[in-house]
Amino acid sequence: MVGIAVVGCGRIGRIHARNVADHPDARLLLLFDAMTEAAQRSSAELGVKVASSIDEILSSAEIAGVVIATPTETHVPLIKAAVSAGKAVLCEKPIDLDLDRARACWNEIAGARPRVMLGFNRRFDPSFRALRERLHRGEVGGLELVVITSRDPAPPSRNYLRHSGGLLRDMTIHDLDMARYLAGEIAQVHAFGANLVDPEIAKLGDIDTCTLSLRAKSGALLQISNSRRCAYGYDQRIEAFGADGMLQAANQRATSVELWTSEQTAARDPVLHFFLERYAQAYRSELAAFIRGVQEGGVLTPDFTDGVEALRLAVAAEESLRGGRTVDIL
Amino acid sequence: MVGIAVVGCGRIGRIHARNVADHPDARLLLLFDAMTEAAQRSSAELGVKVASSIDEILSSAEIAGVVIATPTETHVPLIKAAVSAGKAVLCEKPIDLDLDRARACWNEIAGARPRVMLGFNRRFDPSFRALRERLHRGEVGGLELVVITSRDPAPPSRNYLRHSGGLLRDMTIHDLDMARYLAGEIAQVHAFGANLVDPEIAKLGDIDTCTLSLRAKSGALLQISNSRRCAYGYDQRIEAFGADGMLQAANQRATSVELWTSEQTAARDPVLHFFLERYAQAYRSELAAFIRGVQEGGVLTPDFTDGVEALRLAVAAEESLRGGRTVDIL
Amino acid sequence: MVGIAVVGCGRIGRIHARNVADHPDARLLLLFDAMTEAAQRSSAELGVKVASSIDEILSSAEIAGVVIATPTETHVPLIKAAVSAGKAVLCEKPIDLDLDRARACWNEIAGARPRVMLGFNRRFDPSFRALRERLHRGEVGGLELVVITSRDPAPPSRNYLRHSGGLLRDMTIHDLDMARYLAGEIAQVHAFGANLVDPEIAKLGDIDTCTLSLRAKSGALLQISNSRRCAYGYDQRIEAFGADGMLQAANQRATSVELWTSEQTAARDPVLHFFLERYAQAYRSELAAFIRGVQEGGVLTPDFTDGVEALRLAVAAEESLRGGRTVDIL
Amino acid sequence: MVGIAVVGCGRIGRIHARNVADHPDARLLLLFDAMTEAAQRSSAELGVKVASSIDEILSSAEIAGVVIATPTETHVPLIKAAVSAGKAVLCEKPIDLDLDRARACWNEIAGARPRVMLGFNRRFDPSFRALRERLHRGEVGGLELVVITSRDPAPPSRNYLRHSGGLLRDMTIHDLDMARYLAGEIAQVHAFGANLVDPEIAKLGDIDTCTLSLRAKSGALLQISNSRRCAYGYDQRIEAFGADGMLQAANQRATSVELWTSEQTAARDPVLHFFLERYAQAYRSELAAFIRGVQEGGVLTPDFTDGVEALRLAVAAEESLRGGRTVDIL
Repeated sequence: MVGIAVVGCGRIGRIHARNVADHPDARLLLLFDAMTEAAQRSSAELGVKVASSIDEILSSAEIAGVVIATPTETHVPLIKAAVSAGKAVLCEKPIDLDLDRARACWNEIAGARPRVMLGFNRRFDPSFRALRERLHRGEVGGLELVVITSRDPAPPSRNYLRHSGGLLRDMTIHDLDMARYLAGEIAQVHAFGANLVDPEIAKLGDIDTCTLSLRAKSGALLQISNSRRCAYGYDQRIEAFGADGMLQAANQRATSVELWTSEQTAARDPVLHFFLERYAQAYRSELAAFIRGVQEGGVLTPDFTDGVEALRLAVAAEESLRGGRTVDIL
Repeated sequence: MVGIAVVGCGRIGRIHARNVADHPDARLLLLFDAMTEAAQRSSAELGVKVASSIDEILSSAEIAGVVIATPTETHVPLIKAAVSAGKAVLCEKPIDLDLDRARACWNEIAGARPRVMLGFNRRFDPSFRALRERLHRGEVGGLELVVITSRDPAPPSRNYLRHSGGLLRDMTIHDLDMARYLAGEIAQVHAFGANLVDPEIAKLGDIDTCTLSLRAKSGALLQISNSRRCAYGYDQRIEAFGADGMLQAANQRATSVELWTSEQTAARDPVLHFFLERYAQAYRSELAAFIRGVQEGGVLTPDFTDGVEALRLAVAAEESLRGGRTVDIL
Repeated sequence: MVGIAVVGCGRIGRIHARNVADHPDARLLLLFDAMTEAAQRSSAELGVKVASSIDEILSSAEIAGVVIATPTETHVPLIKAAVSAGKAVLCEKPIDLDLDRARACWNEIAGARPRVMLGFNRRFDPSFRALRERLHRGEVGGLELVVITSRDPAPPSRNYLRHSGGLLRDMTIHDLDMARYLAGEIAQVHAFGANLVDPEIAKLGDIDTCTLSLRAKSGALLQISNSRRCAYGYDQRIEAFGADGMLQAANQRATSVELWTSEQTAARDPVLHFFLERYAQAYRSELAAFIRGVQEGGVLTPDFTDGVEALRLAVAAEESLRGGRTVDIL
Repeated sequence: MVGIAVVGCGRIGRIHARNVADHPDARLLLLFDAMTEAAQRSSAELGVKVASSIDEILSSAEIAGVVIATPTETHVPLIKAAVSAGKAVLCEKPIDLDLDRARACWNEIAGARPRVMLGFNRRFDPSFRALRERLHRGEVGGLELVVITSRDPAPPSRNYLRHSGGLLRDMTIHDLDMARYLAGEIAQVHAFGANLVDPEIAKLGDIDTCTLSLRAKSGALLQISNSRRCAYGYDQRIEAFGADGMLQAANQRATSVELWTSEQTAARDPVLHFFLERYAQAYRSELAAFIRGVQEGGVLTPDFTDGVEALRLAVAAEESLRGGRTVDIL
């Protein structure tokens, strides 16, 4: 049994707390949220004690792992505190909106042999994972091109947007991690951004639509497209082309029902609405990987470096947007 | 070059005439239709002479093959005349609505080594043909079950229905031929009929919906379903199950476009409207097989016997409807 | 909180026990199995006490509902005992292999206002359920035809087969219930059976493949096909045709990955292997419906009568097989 | 009846010649090819006279339209000659490999009110055309993103490559025209190129794989990916995303057959092999549009300017490759 605490009881924190509670090898021992009501709601749901402070969690000998699902600006101090208390960490992405701060954090903790896993949940989606395994097994030969489509059903609240770090650090970062997960290290990035969805987003100095081209060090090319709007649900697809063929991970739906009428045939449901639905299994598998890693002492992956690298690519994409040029990742 | 005449210039006769005209190895020499205007319309379209009589066709030394696409009751006399004039024949199904008359026709012509091909066009559909070839090649192992779905977009005119011979001899006969094409000779038949589409059809003593179960001599089972109504087009599908898997021939559409909206995703066009669209290629291939058979003297298939056997199964299905029992094909 | 006991800790009993344990409104209080080891294994898994006898369960005031997942021959006595102890019951299908005994059971318990739900799990499959709701909402107009495909991946053990009651009472009974669920009461049945999969099944006097035709009292027609063998997984599909179109519930897979190579394109995974995988959600929803029914005192459905009626149709289908005729359901 | 001559009897010239010969409103009067055997082979196939020279064609009063399907370097002189002879022209793409020469050609002929149609055959593909019509009809709201996938089954011969003008002017030019066809004028281009398929192509100074990002003047973004290799056939797909959904044009196959086995399910045929198969209907429709335009005197589209603009985008993409930056289309 692995003792776990969850810090941050918002939308994603609740998922993690529920998944810890359901895991046969884990015990959810403490919850914490600076917003007391949020912590108490989860506490009531799961019958778990609310910690009076972060310190109560970090000083508990029973707790081996800490899940961090708090606002982004608290990630770095929490990671540092948890690592120096000897806890394994599962931290939601991004490490920080500021690349230098993320790197400085690493410099500070690196000596402590930190065990930090980054919450790139899509790596644990069964379909994306199967695609990668079959790709690496050689089912389509050497990788030549990856096309990633990723569209949110609707823009987040203005308040969320204000603190999001912008489309590239908030949303595209997932696809940049997926690019690395599939094609390895990236050598070059180019980005186009646009404001097509909501003029409010432009007012915040942010974009709502983008296309990226990447070149991997392996030579493979990649394309990413993102939008804050998607009428038919949360569009999450990958195509990976190799010398011998293509692997495709398609969208998913709640049922397998098709409608055939005089208007349209084989019409399916909208795709799963958003990340809570689409990545429900991914969040369970991610948590299970963390528990197993803590329990067995094995590698935690994706790790802190993966978090830094994805952020670095997002920053490079922003530079490309501004400069109108291909940016080399040095 | 093979000289061909087309007798009957209605809906299907025109298709055959056009296909003969377009075939590189055939010459369409004469057309005939008892309705002079029909013949003249095709004549104008294709620049081909209208024969003054059937005799002009049968006595022409240049004509090696005759395509018969006239009303059903004229098939038997025309086949007899053409065979005794030494012509190869491609005759639309059915040979006749009356099984005894069809058999008597055979008895009369059999001595003349007749070369008669029956117009079961679906045998030439590229998808059904590929399904059969792959089935026979063993891609799914020994055949165990066939499921045939066949639905017309809308009932024919009351006048057509009155002379159609009823659902089983007019429409199901195609599926009964397909059953034999895929599973060989049939041992037993059971049928349910219903009036669900149009009360006028019931007034004519006919049914508009049916389900059939068949057992092949090989032991395989088969299911057929038919309806005179299908909102989304001409539903024409086959599934063939073997010990090692299944082969499926799906519906077809004019474009490959899909629509994804907040209501429905991956919604495709209605399926091809009716036989003229769906079996356009099948009619061309059927005609090409006939031309080749005439030219090279090889086997013409499906042949007269296939026409008799499909009719025999339709008659047995009617007997099952009336008697409420499984009917053995002796 | 609803107190529940599970009787029978085999393959399906374990699923039910796990689902009770996971349900937020239920408490799994006791387990029982005549095979002590089976009960103890589940007990260890779930941390739940093993009852010393059925009586301990039936006499416990805390237990409101009993899940019966024992061998078929014990269903009737257990239902009777549980009902007379005032417990609500969720009993696996079939009630009994013998129609008279099932009816006698009802006669005995009917006076006690029994609350008995039958385990026709497929009614709770999200896709089949959505298909039915959309059908009843009129999305395809009045129902005219239902086609049910149901194939097991491989035959069960000879021992299972010996006590199964035969293909129609063991396997087809699910599809007969689905027929009633979609089309209401059935008026006529015809069946063909065959031995195509395993000669051992014939030696047991059983069949391994069948096709059924049914006519509903509403006038709609239905087709069922069953096999004890399916190379590509557990084939579970439904098509429902109405005046205005068709609803189709397709097979399901563990991932959405497609492979495109020089051999084949858009190739998907095998379908979910068997009922544990395909109906995992259905079992959860079924159990949830039972818990809710017990808790709120509402209707439990499908009920005892549904169990009797499905069995009656299976018996009628056997009669059709033997007599080679359409059998009327009186 | 419109009199037509075809100049150039290679792979594409033969298609055009056959389509002219089959068109009910056109007469194929003369053929020409500098390679006499090529002209004679087509002549024999279609029973059409071979012209002794281009002049014979241009001076024939019966010929209203000339189809140019010769090597690229002859396009400009042939267009000029045909226009000054008063003929309408259907010229294969590209006008020329050199943008300046193409523009100079226009300057020379513009005064003559030239009627020149460019052979961007994909605009006439029924699926792409339907996608565009439905897009413009507003089925998915305002256009935000287009994703074009275009992969050849295998690299062309080294000889072809040597005179092709490079991947971008030879292959991508079709996708650049499609980009304009769907999204209107283009404002910015970025390209990545790679050598992943065949080292011989690199030796020729060419690339075999590329990804392009484009921004339309409307604000919409576009992505193109190209490869000289595709194991499963000629991959030709478009996705167009709007505010209210997405339209997708999928790949096409010769049959609708699916294979379901223990390995894979719903596996379809490879997609249509190459342009001759995939765009057979597009070539027919393109030719029909040309004939109609000649006959009725209406607009010929795509026109000379479309040819210049697509070439201009290809040149800009090359500049982006070399300069590692976004290139503005002025």
